[in-house]
Amino acid sequence: MARVEAMNGWETGVLTLDSINPNVIHIEYAVRGPIVQKACLLEKEISQGVCKKFREIVKCNIGDCHATGQKPITFFRQVISMMTYPTLIDDPKIPSDAKLRAKRMLTSCSGSSVGSYSDSLGLWTVREDVARFIERRDGISSAPENIFLSSGASEAIKSVLYLLSTGLAGDQRAGIMVPVPQYPLYSATNSEYNAYQINYYLDESRNWALNTDELERALNEAKGKCLPRAIVVINPGNPTGQVLSRESMEQVIKFAVDNRLVLLADEVYQFNIYHPDEHPWFSFKRVLHDMGPAYSQRLELASFMSCSKGFMGECGFRGGYCELVNFNPDVQAQLYKLLSARLCSPVLGQAMVGCFVNPPEKHEPSYNSYTSERDSILGQLKLKAEMMTKMLNSLPGMSCNVVQGAMYAFPRIHLPPRAVQAAEERGLKPDFFYCVQFLEEKGVCFVPGSGFGQVDGTYHFRVTILPPVEKIKHVLECLKDFHTAFMAKYSDTECS
Amino acid sequence: MARVEAMNGWETGVLTLDSINPNVIHIEYAVRGPIVQKACLLEKEISQGVCKKFREIVKCNIGDCHATGQKPITFFRQVISMMTYPTLIDDPKIPSDAKLRAKRMLTSCSGSSVGSYSDSLGLWTVREDVARFIERRDGISSAPENIFLSSGASEAIKSVLYLLSTGLAGDQRAGIMVPVPQYPLYSATNSEYNAYQINYYLDESRNWALNTDELERALNEAKGKCLPRAIVVINPGNPTGQVLSRESMEQVIKFAVDNRLVLLADEVYQFNIYHPDEHPWFSFKRVLHDMGPAYSQRLELASFMSCSKGFMGECGFRGGYCELVNFNPDVQAQLYKLLSARLCSPVLGQAMVGCFVNPPEKHEPSYNSYTSERDSILGQLKLKAEMMTKMLNSLPGMSCNVVQGAMYAFPRIHLPPRAVQAAEERGLKPDFFYCVQFLEEKGVCFVPGSGFGQVDGTYHFRVTILPPVEKIKHVLECLKDFHTAFMAKYSDTECS
Repeated sequence: MARVEAMNGWETGVLTLDSINPNVIHIEYAVRGPIVQKACLLEKEISQGVCKKFREIVKCNIGDCHATGQKPITFFRQVISMMTYPTLIDDPKIPSDAKLRAKRMLTSCSGSSVGSYSDSLGLWTVREDVARFIERRDGISSAPENIFLSSGASEAIKSVLYLLSTGLAGDQRAGIMVPVPQYPLYSATNSEYNAYQINYYLDESRNWALNTDELERALNEAKGKCLPRAIVVINPGNPTGQVLSRESMEQVIKFAVDNRLVLLADEVYQFNIYHPDEHPWFSFKRVLHDMGPAYSQRLELASFMSCSKGFMGECGFRGGYCELVNFNPDVQAQLYKLLSARLCSPVLGQAMVGCFVNPPEKHEPSYNSYTSERDSILGQLKLKAEMMTKMLNSLPGMSCNVVQGAMYAFPRIHLPPRAVQAAEERGLKPDFFYCVQFLEEKGVCFVPGSGFGQVDGTYHFRVTILPPVEKIKHVLECLKDFHTAFMAKYSDTECS
Repeated sequence: MARVEAMNGWETGVLTLDSINPNVIHIEYAVRGPIVQKACLLEKEISQGVCKKFREIVKCNIGDCHATGQKPITFFRQVISMMTYPTLIDDPKIPSDAKLRAKRMLTSCSGSSVGSYSDSLGLWTVREDVARFIERRDGISSAPENIFLSSGASEAIKSVLYLLSTGLAGDQRAGIMVPVPQYPLYSATNSEYNAYQINYYLDESRNWALNTDELERALNEAKGKCLPRAIVVINPGNPTGQVLSRESMEQVIKFAVDNRLVLLADEVYQFNIYHPDEHPWFSFKRVLHDMGPAYSQRLELASFMSCSKGFMGECGFRGGYCELVNFNPDVQAQLYKLLSARLCSPVLGQAMVGCFVNPPEKHEPSYNSYTSERDSILGQLKLKAEMMTKMLNSLPGMSCNVVQGAMYAFPRIHLPPRAVQAAEERGLKPDFFYCVQFLEEKGVCFVPGSGFGQVDGTYHFRVTILPPVEKIKHVLECLKDFHTAFMAKYSDTECS
């Protein structure tokens, strides 16, 4: 780079690591962190013909369904392509129900073009359809006015967290309760907005259950350090894959009301439920409603959903929504004003939300192909979840809770003390040490548990269940080989 | 609403106007502000059959091309629709160059699906194409590594402003120099990140020129109140429509280097240049380069571009890019890490950027239709810009600079003192008072100048030049009627 030889070095620039926003430096985002960057580098080297012990990198680091070969739902893509290029509405090969959806949403776009801005809260038609979807799901009324569309669930979550943060320092910071392990969007956003993160631990020994004693402990410890404002619950869990019981949800609601906390319900995996009979999923809105007015009229609840997960897996569209329950109308207006400064979320992302909340109905021509595509994807995911758990539990020194929902397994690795010591000697976290060696040895990318948080002295990794069955088998075989050798190398019985 | 009758009023909720983030309350975004909300309300009433003095609302408040009837570029939409629904690649009715673009970008998507996440900085192929586009434009090398794709230009601008902000209070806040009048994204973002906004005034008497004395004055006044960090320049101007001269740009660059400021160049209207012979547009990167190494190796420059403006007008796609010049690599890495936590910008927005930076070439089948669509749109915009200026200047008590670029006129209304007094008696800003009456009387929505900033005691409004010629004529006739009556009503010769 020419700049290197310039008369001025980087240190004389305006922006240095000392002068930029310190909150940026504190942000960590493991799902795209150093191990993933390493994987990308290896991938690039392979594409350039560099010889490795493996022919490709299998990325099990991110919930990116289509990247691992899952096919899009045909109906959804037909609708979106017609909205993009309305000439296609005359194509006789495209079914009429897809045309109906495309025309309906297109009519609600200004100038009948997806190239115009929508209202900053999203297309009204889609907000209406989301409300109807929620009503069908919960059997409780839902109003489009309380729903806004966002660029993935992430943007909605960040906006609400921004609203909650105080803009102040020290003990005047907002306190946000976050589960551990958690999805790192929460910790990254809390860093970004300088909020105080109150960690509460999920109980691994009881399939990552949430218990009130632990919530109390966490909140008590945070007293005097921040102004506690909200509790985040991820259900189904990410990275932990549990589906909360109704009782557990009731306890959280009581806790939130008693302690004057807003509840942020991350429900983006609500379609990924693998044992609906034993472990059914309920929305927080539904459970709240059933608890009667003492709760249902008091708790401020924000629920988040996305088109990126479920059976759609349309991450690249960046579509999501948030429903607000019991928000003070003045506060809601302020949040909506905040959203207006970013103009609108991507209109085709909104359209994708419009698709999944309003899929073909039984009497419509696309119904059969739609349900068969959907059920095949969900069936495969269930199969892979079971395969993964079974295999992980068969390895000595590894244990994994049942994947009841979402898209990940989060097994615990019982690392021998000598492995921990070896990692620490290299200045690495032990689970990172394990994962990076696995990547270098076998070309498979997991995310170390430390990126999600875990009880001190325990070690985990997150692995997605997304790749096709054959590839999952390959991953598990690689893991078996690697794990056996790794454990043998660092076990106490071997002398150094 | 049931909540109203609940045992607890809103005041007992966790979130009230007193407890939410005070920065949110300070945010103002005039382009979507109260007058626009009023316009939407009127629109809704008309659709419900309420009788008004007009049959429709003409929204001249926002640079939303397709909303006012501008047609999308066929080639771009063909590419995007094939990427969405690849079955269409076999459609013989779609030209081969569009197919080529679709296949090329699709290949660079993980799993060959636009439903997968891209790299957080955007699809590599598109970043490469952006770099080549910049090289053709400026005749200077550009590296894809220094380019990232964003959700519109807005997201990129916000990310860089976030990086620049200090996270601190009082005189330790980052100082960001912003032109007045300005595009309110800047003031809204400075509120959001608690940065100190240093206003510098553009000189209306010299067609909104930028002069160094004013920059010096503004910076000197801010000393001791903040840590000055950056200067924002919008070229072509929004809302002011001027195109900066090369000399003016050189002065800004000198000023930024001498005062250790990062330069944020908002160049989203670079295709909207209406008098290229007398007022040609240059990129800041090009001018910087020509000033030699004392400047070109020192200034930290971030330039922003979008698919929402120009002749594309594809606002709903939320596609944009930023090129970083001379950024410290460690700082750049921190910015890139920040971007990774929002996963990626919408992939079809990225694809739209990929389209406009890599349009059909002379030898390709879509070349003629593409250039004819493009030139027709730009020709119309030029015509409307001239029509608008001429007509506004013909009204007594109104004056408007030539619209050299962008999509807006920003005329000054020389309001009679009695109009100012009447407004103030109602607690309204005088230009708001004017615009809101115009809206209620004629059904046309302008944005008051106070939303963009203006010299105290002067009054303006912003009007887009986007509606079709016939509608612009209608708007101007309405304005003539209204303005004449308004001025007569409040002129000094009339007694109250």
